[in-house]
Amino acid sequence: MRSSLKSGWSRRVGVSTVAALMFAAGETAAPANADEGMWLLSSPPTQQIKARYGIEVTPEFILHAQRASVDIGASGSFVSKRGLVMTNHHVASDAIQKLSTPERDLIKNGFFARTLAEELPCADTEVTILMSIRDVTAEVNAPAAGREAAQARRANITAIEDSEKTKTGLDARVVTLYGGGQYHLYTFKRFTDVRLVFAPEVQAAYFGGDTDNFEFPRYCLDAAFMRVYENGKPYEPEHFLKFSKEGVKDGETIFVFGHPGRTQRLLTLDDLRQVRDHELPQRLATIWRMESKLREFMGKSPENARVAGDDFLGWTNSRKALTGELAGLLDPAVWKTKMAENAAVFNTGTPKAAAAREAAESLAGVRDRVREISPRSSTLGRGIPGELGSRALRMVLREGQLALSPGERLPEFSPSAIAQTDYGILAPVPIYPAFEEAQLEWWFSLLTERLGGEDPLVQQIMDGASPRELAQRVVRGTALASVDARKAMMESASSKAVPTTVDPMIALARRVAPEYLRLRRINEGEIGGKRAEAYAKIADARFEALGTSVYPDATGTLRMSYGAVEGVKSDTPPTPAFTTIAGLYDLAQRRADSREYAVAKSWMDAKDSLVLQTPFNFICTADIIGGNSGSPVINAKGEVVGLIFDGNIDSLAGAFVYDQARNRAVAVDSRAIVEALRKVYDASVLADELMAP
Amino acid sequence: MRSSLKSGWSRRVGVSTVAALMFAAGETAAPANADEGMWLLSSPPTQQIKARYGIEVTPEFILHAQRASVDIGASGSFVSKRGLVMTNHHVASDAIQKLSTPERDLIKNGFFARTLAEELPCADTEVTILMSIRDVTAEVNAPAAGREAAQARRANITAIEDSEKTKTGLDARVVTLYGGGQYHLYTFKRFTDVRLVFAPEVQAAYFGGDTDNFEFPRYCLDAAFMRVYENGKPYEPEHFLKFSKEGVKDGETIFVFGHPGRTQRLLTLDDLRQVRDHELPQRLATIWRMESKLREFMGKSPENARVAGDDFLGWTNSRKALTGELAGLLDPAVWKTKMAENAAVFNTGTPKAAAAREAAESLAGVRDRVREISPRSSTLGRGIPGELGSRALRMVLREGQLALSPGERLPEFSPSAIAQTDYGILAPVPIYPAFEEAQLEWWFSLLTERLGGEDPLVQQIMDGASPRELAQRVVRGTALASVDARKAMMESASSKAVPTTVDPMIALARRVAPEYLRLRRINEGEIGGKRAEAYAKIADARFEALGTSVYPDATGTLRMSYGAVEGVKSDTPPTPAFTTIAGLYDLAQRRADSREYAVAKSWMDAKDSLVLQTPFNFICTADIIGGNSGSPVINAKGEVVGLIFDGNIDSLAGAFVYDQARNRAVAVDSRAIVEALRKVYDASVLADELMAP
Repeated sequence: MRSSLKSGWSRRVGVSTVAALMFAAGETAAPANADEGMWLLSSPPTQQIKARYGIEVTPEFILHAQRASVDIGASGSFVSKRGLVMTNHHVASDAIQKLSTPERDLIKNGFFARTLAEELPCADTEVTILMSIRDVTAEVNAPAAGREAAQARRANITAIEDSEKTKTGLDARVVTLYGGGQYHLYTFKRFTDVRLVFAPEVQAAYFGGDTDNFEFPRYCLDAAFMRVYENGKPYEPEHFLKFSKEGVKDGETIFVFGHPGRTQRLLTLDDLRQVRDHELPQRLATIWRMESKLREFMGKSPENARVAGDDFLGWTNSRKALTGELAGLLDPAVWKTKMAENAAVFNTGTPKAAAAREAAESLAGVRDRVREISPRSSTLGRGIPGELGSRALRMVLREGQLALSPGERLPEFSPSAIAQTDYGILAPVPIYPAFEEAQLEWWFSLLTERLGGEDPLVQQIMDGASPRELAQRVVRGTALASVDARKAMMESASSKAVPTTVDPMIALARRVAPEYLRLRRINEGEIGGKRAEAYAKIADARFEALGTSVYPDATGTLRMSYGAVEGVKSDTPPTPAFTTIAGLYDLAQRRADSREYAVAKSWMDAKDSLVLQTPFNFICTADIIGGNSGSPVINAKGEVVGLIFDGNIDSLAGAFVYDQARNRAVAVDSRAIVEALRKVYDASVLADELMAP
Repeated sequence: MRSSLKSGWSRRVGVSTVAALMFAAGETAAPANADEGMWLLSSPPTQQIKARYGIEVTPEFILHAQRASVDIGASGSFVSKRGLVMTNHHVASDAIQKLSTPERDLIKNGFFARTLAEELPCADTEVTILMSIRDVTAEVNAPAAGREAAQARRANITAIEDSEKTKTGLDARVVTLYGGGQYHLYTFKRFTDVRLVFAPEVQAAYFGGDTDNFEFPRYCLDAAFMRVYENGKPYEPEHFLKFSKEGVKDGETIFVFGHPGRTQRLLTLDDLRQVRDHELPQRLATIWRMESKLREFMGKSPENARVAGDDFLGWTNSRKALTGELAGLLDPAVWKTKMAENAAVFNTGTPKAAAAREAAESLAGVRDRVREISPRSSTLGRGIPGELGSRALRMVLREGQLALSPGERLPEFSPSAIAQTDYGILAPVPIYPAFEEAQLEWWFSLLTERLGGEDPLVQQIMDGASPRELAQRVVRGTALASVDARKAMMESASSKAVPTTVDPMIALARRVAPEYLRLRRINEGEIGGKRAEAYAKIADARFEALGTSVYPDATGTLRMSYGAVEGVKSDTPPTPAFTTIAGLYDLAQRRADSREYAVAKSWMDAKDSLVLQTPFNFICTADIIGGNSGSPVINAKGEVVGLIFDGNIDSLAGAFVYDQARNRAVAVDSRAIVEALRKVYDASVLADELMAP
């Protein structure tokens, strides 16, 4: 699964800062025998694992997995001593798409670099390793003279990050946990030279398409390999994961390390109602609209289909994920669980529980505020869509932000983050004018659909033009498609020359920027601040009631999950844990009516040489969610046995509640990866690198 | 094009009563040389036609075309002396779908009855001929003791209809014109024995699919033939249209008779803003959602795709139509025109103009009310979706409605309409439980998405179940799939036995009915009444300013349009008026990437025998809109030269303004119909019937 989180308009698999700030806290009432939890590596569930599986998880095991894991938009891991990174095809697909051209469609046809020289540098792919974790809660919460609490925290966070970056040279980020109950400082080693090594054709990676997404049984080679370079040479990681020789068995204990994006397991009941009645319907409305718009655009030509195809898969994936989440919140059984969990925290009768109740009640105003600004948040608050528009907006913001003191800036313009932001602005991504125009036209129309045509800002933005006219004017008139032009503008901005620029895309961004900034301030400052304060009190009550060994909601940062390879016994008939390669061909034959189930030509050609009984995909009980895509599944020896790429349909309600009986993570079996590399893709050199002793 | 109107949830091509009541009035400022207008047959634009084309349109010509035209959900016409009716495939497709089974997919494969005996009776297709037209404005507006004006009008209308039906035996309906400026009594001869004679495979009818919908050039055989029976024998109509032997030429004058569903050309500017900012966005939101849901459902199996396919095409058609309408209202050029038109009516300085302005201002409260109830109107106000749910609701309503005096009932339960309503309830339409369940599950979820999960009525409707659980419970538990069961329940209802029924679908309908009824009363009584009164005054001012020879906005009733076969000269390069059969094969070759552009096998097989230079589709300037689908295009001799099936993309803003330069109606050339019948479908017997002297 892709993460259903979207940062602004661009389809990203990672988690946005806003979302990370917005959500909350701790876990209750997990049955002692459940494989529940996305655990902090700084507080691993060693006792639970020992009790449940008899396995001793050592600090060395965890540090090894931590340093071998990478954030690559979603999840990934080093799997060779020469910097090879394994992730999902659908995580790498943004990079693969950007490496494609009409003549060389790597999404459609796949890619394999037989030699280092053939590896393709990605336009804007970044990889980070989590190097260290430190609790900085007290420092973040320290009052700052002349600032109210939320501003003080923001300023403290910036100062902590800055100082750490200066000291260590590493990227530093303070992560909000338990919705404001704790703050941890994470440092990262960051790489920007990332090259594509191997990707299958999308038909093999995404066999079964939207219909089978979030389902099991599955038959997908949703895997890709990239290589991280440093100073022009393959990076040699201190830690990497070896592939298992034997693979995994039904019932075997496994571990998953990855970057779950967002769960909302411990929202108050009223906040959860707002998710059900407002947030999810509103997000789905945006998604359904985009899905329809993109499909119409893609129908017009093969080139349109190529250019927008990866975005389209991202949106349909989000649609299916959020549909499942909403279905979960419409299930009275889920509410029963949530009510019991809440009662355990709020009804203990202690002073902390009383304070938590009061804090929970104080959130009513926050919810009103969220709904009130929702038409603006969901349009102008997401910035301008497209490669050009999003960059223009960042460039316009940048110039105002750099004039502020570090503590007052948006997080991405803080001293510790500005290099990464600039890297994104200047990345040589391909620009497709027709697609840029279409996205802007849809967005301009959306402004009226949500805010009304009489809205003064909408009128100002539209500047007397129709959506199509304005989209054409700004795309055809801008120089921003050129990296050199972007660089020149940024340099002249430093010398205060940008304000006079008449580039029409920049002019558009100037009309949008003030409201965008205002909405960010409201969401991250006012709303985020009040939430953090309330949830900090709720977290106190939770720790008091349930002990401190509880995991925080997912925040897009590195976590560990554990469990076992296990089918779903409550299905009729029971769903087995494994599929085999043979099943791919069987299903394709049964669904010959559908293009989604067409077997890729390479797999048809290789059928006779494949060991058809090779396990292809499997399911396990590890507790994961969107953002975990690309996570390695490792055995107790720390060897790779699989590659998470999805959750089953019952995992979607996992955003709110974990169901041991039905919630399953879906993985590619490591043996299928090796079998396919050797027999389908003639890529034994890569298989050998994975299997190197 | 299909009409983008939907009556409740079922995809219907016709126009709903509500919509017909809701919209408005007259036409202004049409340039003297424009082919604008959807004219009442009781006030045909004979002078304009004479002036523009030198053709004398006689009362005989019009009566002939009127009686040869039929309402078949959208438009159609008698084209043989043995009751053969020509319409579009996409108009007949609902009937074709209902005649299909998994083993006999007539949508996919097409159908041809070589003999009368092979013709297939349609489950619920009705055909009506408009027999007479009489102005009853004074009778409708007569005050009634003890009733306020809107109620009095409703009661008067029912009494007029009743009395006419008693007198003539014909169906009678009072049609609201000019938004309340005039009321006309129409009588109809109605037929319910309608049989399918010929339908091509959907791939030939809808070549180019969604991508080419509302576009030109086109290559579609969007035609079907049905036969009307009376007393078990082919009906012999007094009037029918003969096919032209020569066909039509570029520049030739043509006439179109059909049932345009709805235009909004003369709303006040503020009402038009509400269409732009509220009505269209809200309707599109529903459509995008349905499109996504249906696609997901259809992906699951070939049978799902078959069962939901025709509905899906209806929704995607609506999406494209309304997207075009919204784009029109986001175009400042359109507003310029609308402002000038409004000024010509409201700014004349006469007492009538002053009254009209006051009336227009009074509509602000109506708009507020519409927005206020919109979440409920767009969900509960549309009734229960699906064949079972919609029937259950009608059955529950029926029992309460029949207890009321005729003037107080909903229009479909008035004495003149009840037979038709009962016919619909008892029609032996196929029921697909999986599709019924899916539609209900989506609707139950929609209730929460729009009204919130805490809404007391939503909670009452959901009865403690999740959407999926409740959908399964009511579909699996109901007896309504059986026509006999429906009949028995309706009979026991007459004897007051229904209230004790525990059929779960009926129980659901009982929970929904009161709110549905309340919303209908608000929309048709309160809102419709206030609108009718205001627009009656605006119509007065319009007549004063522009004379009485103006056409009313479309209301789904029979109208005539005129114009010429004409390409679009302002395109670069200019778009010619005709395509040829050769173009079909050329385009298919260019778009080999897309299934939408696959040539049907029958056409591939017949390619060598076809005269490839036969004109296939053409465009003309006749002013049409959704609902005109299936309209005959006739020449000055009253012969069929084409069959309207679509408008071009620029025709969509035609909902608000006619643009002579770019607005075009798209038709199948009659010569292509005959050529295809003879050479592709081995249906010369049908071609001979059409060409009979």
